[in-house]
Amino acid sequence: MKLGEVAVYLGAELQGDENAECQGINEPERAGPYDLALVGNELRIDVQTLHALALIVDKGSKIEYPNRLLTDQPRLAFCMALELFHPHRSLFPGISPLASISPDAMLAEGVMVGAFTVIAGKAEIGTKTEIHPHVVIYPGVKIGKGCIIYAGVVLREGVELGDYVIVQPGAIVGADGFGYLVSGDQGLRKIPQVGTVCLEDHVEIGANSCVDRGTLSETRVHEQAKLDNLVQVAHNVNVGPRSRLSAQTGISGSVNIGADVVMGGQVGVADHISIAAGTMIAAQAGISGTIKEKGIFAGSPHQDIASWRKSYVLLRNLDDYVVRIKELEKRVKELMNER
Amino acid sequence: MKLGEVAVYLGAELQGDENAECQGINEPERAGPYDLALVGNELRIDVQTLHALALIVDKGSKIEYPNRLLTDQPRLAFCMALELFHPHRSLFPGISPLASISPDAMLAEGVMVGAFTVIAGKAEIGTKTEIHPHVVIYPGVKIGKGCIIYAGVVLREGVELGDYVIVQPGAIVGADGFGYLVSGDQGLRKIPQVGTVCLEDHVEIGANSCVDRGTLSETRVHEQAKLDNLVQVAHNVNVGPRSRLSAQTGISGSVNIGADVVMGGQVGVADHISIAAGTMIAAQAGISGTIKEKGIFAGSPHQDIASWRKSYVLLRNLDDYVVRIKELEKRVKELMNER
Amino acid sequence: MKLGEVAVYLGAELQGDENAECQGINEPERAGPYDLALVGNELRIDVQTLHALALIVDKGSKIEYPNRLLTDQPRLAFCMALELFHPHRSLFPGISPLASISPDAMLAEGVMVGAFTVIAGKAEIGTKTEIHPHVVIYPGVKIGKGCIIYAGVVLREGVELGDYVIVQPGAIVGADGFGYLVSGDQGLRKIPQVGTVCLEDHVEIGANSCVDRGTLSETRVHEQAKLDNLVQVAHNVNVGPRSRLSAQTGISGSVNIGADVVMGGQVGVADHISIAAGTMIAAQAGISGTIKEKGIFAGSPHQDIASWRKSYVLLRNLDDYVVRIKELEKRVKELMNER
Repeated sequence: MKLGEVAVYLGAELQGDENAECQGINEPERAGPYDLALVGNELRIDVQTLHALALIVDKGSKIEYPNRLLTDQPRLAFCMALELFHPHRSLFPGISPLASISPDAMLAEGVMVGAFTVIAGKAEIGTKTEIHPHVVIYPGVKIGKGCIIYAGVVLREGVELGDYVIVQPGAIVGADGFGYLVSGDQGLRKIPQVGTVCLEDHVEIGANSCVDRGTLSETRVHEQAKLDNLVQVAHNVNVGPRSRLSAQTGISGSVNIGADVVMGGQVGVADHISIAAGTMIAAQAGISGTIKEKGIFAGSPHQDIASWRKSYVLLRNLDDYVVRIKELEKRVKELMNER
Repeated sequence: MKLGEVAVYLGAELQGDENAECQGINEPERAGPYDLALVGNELRIDVQTLHALALIVDKGSKIEYPNRLLTDQPRLAFCMALELFHPHRSLFPGISPLASISPDAMLAEGVMVGAFTVIAGKAEIGTKTEIHPHVVIYPGVKIGKGCIIYAGVVLREGVELGDYVIVQPGAIVGADGFGYLVSGDQGLRKIPQVGTVCLEDHVEIGANSCVDRGTLSETRVHEQAKLDNLVQVAHNVNVGPRSRLSAQTGISGSVNIGADVVMGGQVGVADHISIAAGTMIAAQAGISGTIKEKGIFAGSPHQDIASWRKSYVLLRNLDDYVVRIKELEKRVKELMNER
Repeated sequence: MKLGEVAVYLGAELQGDENAECQGINEPERAGPYDLALVGNELRIDVQTLHALALIVDKGSKIEYPNRLLTDQPRLAFCMALELFHPHRSLFPGISPLASISPDAMLAEGVMVGAFTVIAGKAEIGTKTEIHPHVVIYPGVKIGKGCIIYAGVVLREGVELGDYVIVQPGAIVGADGFGYLVSGDQGLRKIPQVGTVCLEDHVEIGANSCVDRGTLSETRVHEQAKLDNLVQVAHNVNVGPRSRLSAQTGISGSVNIGADVVMGGQVGVADHISIAAGTMIAAQAGISGTIKEKGIFAGSPHQDIASWRKSYVLLRNLDDYVVRIKELEKRVKELMNER
């Protein structure tokens, strides 16, 4: 592909050789003479040591290079270049004769099914959805169009996926919520979990993550919400649109997470609380109560991040204050003695 | 089913129309004209807005409604109604011809085996146990009667399950414990993990949880203990009867957990310690040493919850105390100067 | 086997009956009359209550027993005895006719493949590597010799494993990293993750752990590094040689972990930081910035362990200091009033 064509595709301004051959994109220090690289306005990179064909830089950047692609949104251009040079290809095309597909499952046109995948009764799968090998689709599951379901995924009975949902390997959607009745004489009695899970359009679920079915109604992950790996979403939770939950975060039962909430890794959220839209939560925080207004929170139990920082600075300086208290005690004793 | 019959089944007193038709149970605001709903003594619900056929309420509750089911144990009645209207049905009945079952595996009457499940040599499976598709049962595994093993579960060689055990999708029972010998010159030497895992009667293991095999003897989860999703139980651990470990909790090697211990999510427990029966541990706590007497604990490292609360209140007010120290220093300086 | 032969194999000095029959090794209190047991120099064990044939003890130990195996490295002798009495045996020998192996996959001599395992196009598998049932190997994967890949493992397209790598059940290698572009009007745009994962020689990955592929280049786990269960390693991370990450630890994107780093369980590491070789990190710590020099760290955000201990002792004694501040205030008020 000509560099000039790439520039047009990325919506970037090319300063350099529009006829140069461009074949890919790589990290700056690994990019070869046919590769783009993203530099943005990163002045710490010594561009004189680079071998890339062209650099994607911020419009107005002072970075000099033979071929420059100037843009207001370098990361968007980087993402588009990745899409351009690494278009999605279906790894397991067609329907494997080794899959076990129930006669009353309904597969739309272009559905792909890998070897040893099980599609049970009354499942419905939308157009061009790719189901890789070793997926287990329980009875009554509905999947929209254009989804990608990776190997090892389990979709329990009746769960519903919208369009363009991606489920990374090993994720479990619709396992029973964790509910028991404690009765003194009979031990623990399992509360049947008869609800379901809805993953709306463009949701992505990370590897080995778990989204439990509702007890009576549903657990819902709203459109474009993204879960990283090893995330736990308990029964009856709502994850708001475009919210992002980083790896190993756990959401307890019946929590309502608003839109555009961002959580770092290993965050925990207590049950039956709400989190306002747009809230940001630092890694390892423990959200112990409802957050009514958006803000940035950290710590366990959580505080707004400014208070949390102040507390921690004071905590680290506590020994100074202890010294000062002891000094005060000494002087006050002197003063008392002098009376 | 007639509402009067439902009342008898639930052991509740019906005040209302015993001949009304009842078809299910749902959340109060979703329940329709043939559904029960659990209200208990929850006065925040505006019952005038509900469409349910009948409400399950506390005996003595002042909640008014055309049909009321009065009981001392509303949550038990709720659970029993769920069992009544959603009886367990086997999702993968029979033995799939697509399963791979070793000729020397012993399957009792009524065992169900899903497609592509592997049952290796010398495995023994008890009456009416349901093994879903895509389960891997390594050689020598013993499973009792009435168990449900969901898709994607792996039971490693020689592990033993009692009766009525439930293993949610993706759980791994019997992986190698994490043990290496560090020797300066040779790097790390794996310590063979040749023990096993025993899950006793009525144990439930959550989705994608891991229970490692013992190094020499066994890791044991005692009867009725319940593990939520993504829980880690390391080698040689004992989880006491009826103990409940919430999601993403991790138990280090050789820990002894007593009976009826309850842990919140993301708790960590250090190795080689014991936790007294009946102990309750708050989410995200870090149990750094043996707990000899039952209590409620929180924080990392853990404290009894009263001390922990006091520490955190003080921590949040530290800046006040700093102001007071500075004020004291000012006044003492004045007093010193006046001498 | 004769006890004398065992002693020679373990490199230990036998004091006792070299002709005694020895059949195994067990925990001291479980060891029977044909078993070894490791005691080391553990004086709390009452050896008079033991039934073991022989004890492995520290050279110079004062522990008395009819048969003693004396050694400078009792744990090494223990590990070697485990290897001797529990030699590795292949649980799923041969190539199962129920596996789905692409015609252009290259399997070296002695490769074992279990039932329902999928080996996709252009995969390469080295000599004597054991691939258990229900493994999914995506196109272009390369695996060295002598590896063991347990059931339920997914190796995504193009990932590379060196020699003698062990992957415990359910681990996911090469899932997409967690990367999205946030654009106000279009919501979230997935950044294609086109890199790969390299697991070098003698690496072990725990059950249900996840190692994400790099965005452009690779995520690399260096030789002999060991990951416990449910560990998350994000895109573009380097885990240094011989480093050990305990269960439920999470490493954010682009982190560089040096050699011989040891992390306790549930540790979190923030993105784009480095951790010096030889560093030790306590369980549940949150590493918030680069660690340039090796040391022992704890807390979230992390501190060196001495400072962290001091902070926590002070925090627990805060109420004492508050009392002392109040007492000072009272006395200073008296003094002020007396002026």
